[in-house]
Amino acid sequence: MINSKMYELGTKKSTIRTIFEFGRKRAAEVGEENIFDFSLGNPNVPTPQFIKDTIIEILNTMEPTAIHGYTVAPGNPQVRATIAKSINERFGTNYDASNLFITAGAAAAITISFKALCEDNDEFITFAPYFPEYKCFVESVGGKLIVIPAQVEDFQINFDEFEKAINEHTKAIIINSPNNPSGAVYSEATIKRLSEILLKKSEEFDKPIFIISDEPYREIAYDVEIPYVPNYYNNTLVCYSYSKSFSLPGERIGYIVVPNGLEKVYGAIAGAARVLTHVNAPSLWQLVIAKCAGMPSDISTYRRNAELLYNGLIDAGFTCNKPQGAFYLFPKCLESDDYAFCERAKKYDLLLVPGNDFGCPGYFRAAYCIKTETIERSLPLFKKLAAEYKN
Amino acid sequence: MINSKMYELGTKKSTIRTIFEFGRKRAAEVGEENIFDFSLGNPNVPTPQFIKDTIIEILNTMEPTAIHGYTVAPGNPQVRATIAKSINERFGTNYDASNLFITAGAAAAITISFKALCEDNDEFITFAPYFPEYKCFVESVGGKLIVIPAQVEDFQINFDEFEKAINEHTKAIIINSPNNPSGAVYSEATIKRLSEILLKKSEEFDKPIFIISDEPYREIAYDVEIPYVPNYYNNTLVCYSYSKSFSLPGERIGYIVVPNGLEKVYGAIAGAARVLTHVNAPSLWQLVIAKCAGMPSDISTYRRNAELLYNGLIDAGFTCNKPQGAFYLFPKCLESDDYAFCERAKKYDLLLVPGNDFGCPGYFRAAYCIKTETIERSLPLFKKLAAEYKN
Repeated sequence: MINSKMYELGTKKSTIRTIFEFGRKRAAEVGEENIFDFSLGNPNVPTPQFIKDTIIEILNTMEPTAIHGYTVAPGNPQVRATIAKSINERFGTNYDASNLFITAGAAAAITISFKALCEDNDEFITFAPYFPEYKCFVESVGGKLIVIPAQVEDFQINFDEFEKAINEHTKAIIINSPNNPSGAVYSEATIKRLSEILLKKSEEFDKPIFIISDEPYREIAYDVEIPYVPNYYNNTLVCYSYSKSFSLPGERIGYIVVPNGLEKVYGAIAGAARVLTHVNAPSLWQLVIAKCAGMPSDISTYRRNAELLYNGLIDAGFTCNKPQGAFYLFPKCLESDDYAFCERAKKYDLLLVPGNDFGCPGYFRAAYCIKTETIERSLPLFKKLAAEYKN
Repeated sequence: MINSKMYELGTKKSTIRTIFEFGRKRAAEVGEENIFDFSLGNPNVPTPQFIKDTIIEILNTMEPTAIHGYTVAPGNPQVRATIAKSINERFGTNYDASNLFITAGAAAAITISFKALCEDNDEFITFAPYFPEYKCFVESVGGKLIVIPAQVEDFQINFDEFEKAINEHTKAIIINSPNNPSGAVYSEATIKRLSEILLKKSEEFDKPIFIISDEPYREIAYDVEIPYVPNYYNNTLVCYSYSKSFSLPGERIGYIVVPNGLEKVYGAIAGAARVLTHVNAPSLWQLVIAKCAGMPSDISTYRRNAELLYNGLIDAGFTCNKPQGAFYLFPKCLESDDYAFCERAKKYDLLLVPGNDFGCPGYFRAAYCIKTETIERSLPLFKKLAAEYKN
């Protein structure tokens, strides 16, 4: 009667969703202030005032049919030119409107990229810990997701395992830096080595292997440089979103950068967007991002929260890498079973996500895009939780 | 290297696009005012003032994170409840938030519906003349589109051909009333007979056969009633869009109505939206449509244009059904080859779309969502074109 796979995908609750709903239920029982919900990666910094001002300026100065009409599928050419210019200024690239394809956020950008590239038997490689929707999206276009185990010392890339996994079916590598959930940023050395391996393997298999660089957290990084991947490896599609940088996750606006020389990929991206029925990215939002290109992201809250939670967890006896970006910490659990650990944390109304959901068992994710005061009050509870393991 | 099917879908120009681009080129040569471009179905009535006022009201009264944050995938529950209430008031239905799934426009709504329903070897039936993207969308989810030839006397349904086409693989019937490109509205008698046949065939094949009612033009109708299909046949998914009614085609906002008893379909719709990466419909626009639910569409321009063009064409000797809705006329060409006819019309800078593109050769589509004055000045040219066929 219906497509049972779609039913399953539409109705099976994710672990994160289940934890979040548990939190809502507990909040109703014991009060919002007694729940310490670190489960959701939903930006809590308010959308900047300049976004509101820009919308009103557009509404007051442009013809409504020009604001709200269809754009061409890749997006308003002037908007694309403006964003290309802004990217050129930041990263020394040489792009114009024809290198940009505006999308309804990063989820659309990466899935359009998967669909544009994927042929029969293609494999896409990613590195644990990774965003779990990758598997769903890659499989939906007929590809297979290959996951390389995490290099837990620093959450860079386990290159030995990676090299072994590349074969004639490898179509693309998906990277996500700053990373959800590890909070790590891939260093220049990592990107260089990744590029070298891919150049060598592309030659060996006589076909391009692409990087899909999923970068919704690019603007949220603490005193570390984030290499611009196409400057190291041209066969890269950069998937960007304004969801986190401008706190606009519900509006679905982002883009794909398609470097020079990849015109055929750009054509396939247009076809993929068409059949995924992304007719065009929301037209008002296209205008807004062009006018706000280059405006800063306010990451002061995330920085403060990161330090507070990191220091608190270290103080309580946890092992955790220093946060470099995004708004997640990914500490080691105090027992090997991350599900059991997160269940035990629930006793203190600490809501954490098991690392196994990100392909990295034995760890947990704590999203710190929440009130600073909530984090402050959670620290004694983390101490109590840790104390249980010392007895 | 890439998916060649996606490349083809992304780069092969549609007839409409080719005609439109020809028009832009001609306009540069002979002046905008000398081009009579009837090719595009792009609303030319300005977006109503209440849309602008509503956006500003929302920005001034709500917290930015509440405006721009993620909503649940089916859309903000209060928005869905408000729209359900508005539908109940208009059509006497009994819906609540759980019957609505907000989408990024009608293209997303119908394709999500196709993907939610489609299993191996499934067939979807539609009636010529039809929106050509149906074929692309149905095939992209693995289905097969079956087209029933047009009933050109009145552009209702050729039921004899229809009955013969239904078989054990038939999953759904796609209807589009008011129709692009015919401008016809399906009468109550048509919907009743369609429902009777589908009830009988559902029983015969012991499985539900669905109607997918694609209704972006519902508000644009001239003194005819448009039956609300679920009131006649419960296994109906209504796909609605605000693109035409509020002149918001670039913003991508619409919904699917899933009648009571189709909860499993609703679950599959959620899965289909997920893999097509429609994470949620743009959140600001969800709020806008809720606040504007029940506001009227201004169709006075379309009505005036419809009459003017219809009378002009009849006067020039064309055969054409009276416009009932949408913003298209679909007259008979003055020769059997509609491509040749539209080529000949180009001599007068009359840009028309051959009916063959809509599965109905020998006719042409004239989109009258253009300036009234342009239509006025085009009428002598249609006369000259018709005169060529009298010699």
